[in-house]
Amino acid sequence: MSMSPATLPVPLPAARSRPAAAGRLAESARTVPGLAGFEQTLKEARVRVRTLTETVPLDRLDRWHHDEGTGFITHDSGRFFSVEGLQVEAQSPSADWGQPILNQPETGILGFLVKEIDGILHFLAQLKAEPGNRNGLQLSPTVQATRSNYTGIHGGRSVPYLEFFQDPARRQVIADVRQSEQGTRFLRKRNRNMIVETAEPVETRDGFVWLTLGQLHRLLATEDLVNMDARSVLACLPLGDGAAPCAGDDDFASGLVRSLAPGAPELHPPTRVLSWITEARTRHETRVRTVPLDSLADWEFTEGRISHRAGRHFDVIGVRVEARGREVGQWCQPMIRARAEGLLALLVTPVHGVLHVLMQIRAEPGLVDTAELAPTVQCTPDDCARLPAREQPFFLDLVQSARAEDIRFDTALSDEGGRFYHTGSRHLVVETDWLPEPPRFRWLTLGQLEELTRHSHYLNMQARSALACLRSLVFAGRR
Amino acid sequence: MSMSPATLPVPLPAARSRPAAAGRLAESARTVPGLAGFEQTLKEARVRVRTLTETVPLDRLDRWHHDEGTGFITHDSGRFFSVEGLQVEAQSPSADWGQPILNQPETGILGFLVKEIDGILHFLAQLKAEPGNRNGLQLSPTVQATRSNYTGIHGGRSVPYLEFFQDPARRQVIADVRQSEQGTRFLRKRNRNMIVETAEPVETRDGFVWLTLGQLHRLLATEDLVNMDARSVLACLPLGDGAAPCAGDDDFASGLVRSLAPGAPELHPPTRVLSWITEARTRHETRVRTVPLDSLADWEFTEGRISHRAGRHFDVIGVRVEARGREVGQWCQPMIRARAEGLLALLVTPVHGVLHVLMQIRAEPGLVDTAELAPTVQCTPDDCARLPAREQPFFLDLVQSARAEDIRFDTALSDEGGRFYHTGSRHLVVETDWLPEPPRFRWLTLGQLEELTRHSHYLNMQARSALACLRSLVFAGRR
Repeated sequence: MSMSPATLPVPLPAARSRPAAAGRLAESARTVPGLAGFEQTLKEARVRVRTLTETVPLDRLDRWHHDEGTGFITHDSGRFFSVEGLQVEAQSPSADWGQPILNQPETGILGFLVKEIDGILHFLAQLKAEPGNRNGLQLSPTVQATRSNYTGIHGGRSVPYLEFFQDPARRQVIADVRQSEQGTRFLRKRNRNMIVETAEPVETRDGFVWLTLGQLHRLLATEDLVNMDARSVLACLPLGDGAAPCAGDDDFASGLVRSLAPGAPELHPPTRVLSWITEARTRHETRVRTVPLDSLADWEFTEGRISHRAGRHFDVIGVRVEARGREVGQWCQPMIRARAEGLLALLVTPVHGVLHVLMQIRAEPGLVDTAELAPTVQCTPDDCARLPAREQPFFLDLVQSARAEDIRFDTALSDEGGRFYHTGSRHLVVETDWLPEPPRFRWLTLGQLEELTRHSHYLNMQARSALACLRSLVFAGRR
Repeated sequence: MSMSPATLPVPLPAARSRPAAAGRLAESARTVPGLAGFEQTLKEARVRVRTLTETVPLDRLDRWHHDEGTGFITHDSGRFFSVEGLQVEAQSPSADWGQPILNQPETGILGFLVKEIDGILHFLAQLKAEPGNRNGLQLSPTVQATRSNYTGIHGGRSVPYLEFFQDPARRQVIADVRQSEQGTRFLRKRNRNMIVETAEPVETRDGFVWLTLGQLHRLLATEDLVNMDARSVLACLPLGDGAAPCAGDDDFASGLVRSLAPGAPELHPPTRVLSWITEARTRHETRVRTVPLDSLADWEFTEGRISHRAGRHFDVIGVRVEARGREVGQWCQPMIRARAEGLLALLVTPVHGVLHVLMQIRAEPGLVDTAELAPTVQCTPDDCARLPAREQPFFLDLVQSARAEDIRFDTALSDEGGRFYHTGSRHLVVETDWLPEPPRFRWLTLGQLEELTRHSHYLNMQARSALACLRSLVFAGRR
C-alpha cells in the first residue's frame, strides 16, 4: 500500500442529528391541499389502466410446473418465486404443522421518492394495477421492484425513477431498512424500504402523482387505496423529531404527538423491551424445513388449487393476467387467496398524557429471526370463530365489541396485489382504558416503535401496516 | 373477557434512562485491585481441573455417525450439533464455493452475573476447562450453556447460577441480546449474550471468581486467558453513559472515552451508516443450501478428518475428551481445527479528538442476515500469503508493518474451546493517521458501535472480540 496518510486532510465530523427532513416531514404531514384533483386523476387512470385477472387451475399455468425433484411449484426459468411446503417443528411434536409458503429469495426495493415543491415535501406515488387488486389501481410507492424487475428478467421495461434509489449522489437517505414480508406466507422474504429526497428536477411521468404526507395520511382512510407496500414504507418514516403538539389539537392528537417525540415518558425502558424480545425469540425458536407440497398432511390439491382440508387459512390458486400499463402484457402465476377477511387491530391508551400502543410479540415460521412485534390483534375472525374459547386471541372480543366513539380508525386495506388475490384486512385503532399486559404483550410509545423500525426484524408487516394507519392520525391536517 | 379496565391503576412511566448500572460500570472499570490472589487461584485450579483431549478419527467417534440419508455427521441422539456441507451460490457461478459447517440450531446463554461488592460492581467469572483450550482453563462468563446443557440432555449436572438468568424477579437486566457466532463456521447460530445484576446474596462456588471490570480488562492482555464467550459478552456492556474523561488520561485514553460518550461527534450520521449496511446486505445476498459432506468438491475425508484439498482454512477433526470438573466426565465429538493462527485487527484514529474505528461490512454464509460489521482486518495471514497481490485483504500490509509505538493492544486469544481445537487469533489495535475508506469500510465511533450491539445482526463475533480488547483500554485503571 502506498498511501501517505499523514498528508490526507482529516474530515470534519457530521453534525449529530437526524436527517434534516424530520421537521419538514411533520410540516408535510400537517399540509393537506384538497384532493379533488387527485381523485379526478385516479378516476381517469382507472379507465385507462386495467388488469384482467382470470382464475385458472394451478396445473395449467403457462411457464409454471410442479417440479418432480423438489415437489414445489416453480417457474420454468427457475426465477421469480416458488410455492413450497413448509414443515414447522414447534416445541412439542403435537404442535408441529405444515403449510404451503412462497419462497422468493431476493430482496426488492420499495421506495418513495420525496422532493420539496413550493417549500413542502411531496411524495411521488404511483397509481399501480396489480392482478390481485379488488379494485384495479391502488397507490403504491414510487418504486416497487423485485430484483427480477430491475435486472430485466421479466423482459419488460426498465423501472422508472429507480436511479434515485441506486445512485447515492442523486439523493439524501431519509430511511433505508430491510423489513420482513408476512412470515406466515413468505419464507425469509424481505424488502428494502427506502425513502429518499432529491434536489434534482424530476419529471412527473404518466401514472405518478405528487402528494403531501398529509394527503397520503388522509387517503389511508379510503378503502383499498393505499397499498400494502406504501403502508410498509410510510411506517419507516422518522416523524418523531418533528413532533410538537399544536394548539387546538384534541387530547387524542396531542397524546399521539407526545408519544412520537423522542424522550417521551414510557412505561418500559428500552433495555427491558429489548430483553423481552430476546427472551421471546429464544423461547419460541422453531425448526423449519421445506418439504414437497404433497407431503403436507392438512392440505390437498383439489379443483386446480391447494386448499386446507378444513377450509381454513388460504388457498394457493392460479391466475392468468392481462394488463395494460404494466411492464409485461400477459402472464400466468400462482397467488395466495385468503379464505376470509383479516383483522389487524391496535389498542391504544394514554398513560399520563402519552399514548401507548399494545403490541404483541409473535413467532411466525417464515421470519428470519423467529418473532417480531405484531398488532394487538392479528387474526382471521372467521377462523377464530371455530376455535374453543381458551384458544381465542387475546383482546379479539374487546376489539370486536368496541364502542363507536372509541374507534379512531377503521378501514379495509389490501395485501400486496402482486402475490395476494382479493385479500386484505380490516385495520382498526381502538382507544381503551389501560389494561394489564399478558406476557406476550407490552404497551409501547410511538417513539419506541419508531426507533425499532430503523432496524430490521422488529416490526412485522402487519404491525407496520397498522402503525401507518395510527400514525396517519398524528398531525391534524389543515387544508 | 371480564376485565374492568376503568378500575385498574394506570402505572407510572419509567424514568427515561439507561440502566442504573451505567455509571457504576465505569467505576468498576476504573477499579483494578491487585491480581495476585486471582493468579494463585488460577494456578491451583489448573492443577485440580483438567481436560485430557486426544485426537481420534472422525469415523471412530463414540455415539457419532455419518448419516447415510443426509450425508452429515450427527450425534446418535440427533441432538447437540451436526457437521454438514454448505454450498454457497454467490453472485456469479464461478464464485460459488462449498465448505463444511457446524449446524446447532438452538440458542444458548452466555451470561455474566454482576453484583455490588463493597460499593463496586463485580463480575462472576468461571474458570472453565474446554477440550479445545491450548492451556486448560480459561476465564468464561458465569454461565455458558447450550439449551442441551440446561435442559439436561447431556445427562450432566444442572448449570450453576442459571436461575439468575431465567428468573426475571431475581435480577436487573444490563444487556440481553442475541449475537451471531462465526458465520464461516456455524450455520445461523446465535447465543443470547446477557449481563444481569442481582441484589441477592450469592454463594461463590468452587471454580468461580469475582472480578471488577478493570481486572477483566487487565486480564484481556494475557494470552489465551479471557475466552471468546467472555469477550463477546463484554462487548455488549453499555459503557457509554458512564464515559467522562479523567484528569491525567493521555490523548489516546481521552479520545477513547470521548468516542464512547453518547452524542460524540461522528464522521457518519447514524441514518447513513444504517443505509450503508442495508445496501451491503442487499448487494451481497447469497443463497446457501446444505449438501452431503462428500459432495464438497474442494474438501476430502483423509486420515480420519475432513480437510481442504489445498490445505487451507481448517480441518474437521474428532476428539475423545476426559474431563474432571465438568458436567460429564467423558465424551467424543467433532471439532474445528484451524490450519494457522488468525488475525483480527482494528485500525483506530482520532478525528478532532474523538477516536474512530475502521470497520468493514463482511458477508459470511452462516450469518442470519447476510453481512455484519467485522474488524478492519479479519483473515488468516498464512492463507493470504498464497493469494495474488490484488486479492490481499485491505490494510493487512499496513497492520502487519505497524510501528511498535502505534500498537495499542497485541494479544493472542482463543476461539471457543467447546468447538474449536487449539484455534485462535492475534488481536491487534493499531493507531494510524486518518485513511480514506474503501466502499466496504467506515470509520465509526465506539458510541455508534455500542448502540449497534444493543441489537442482533450488526457486529460479528470477531468484531465483538476485537472491540472488547479496544474497550479494555478505555478507562485507565487505578490499583
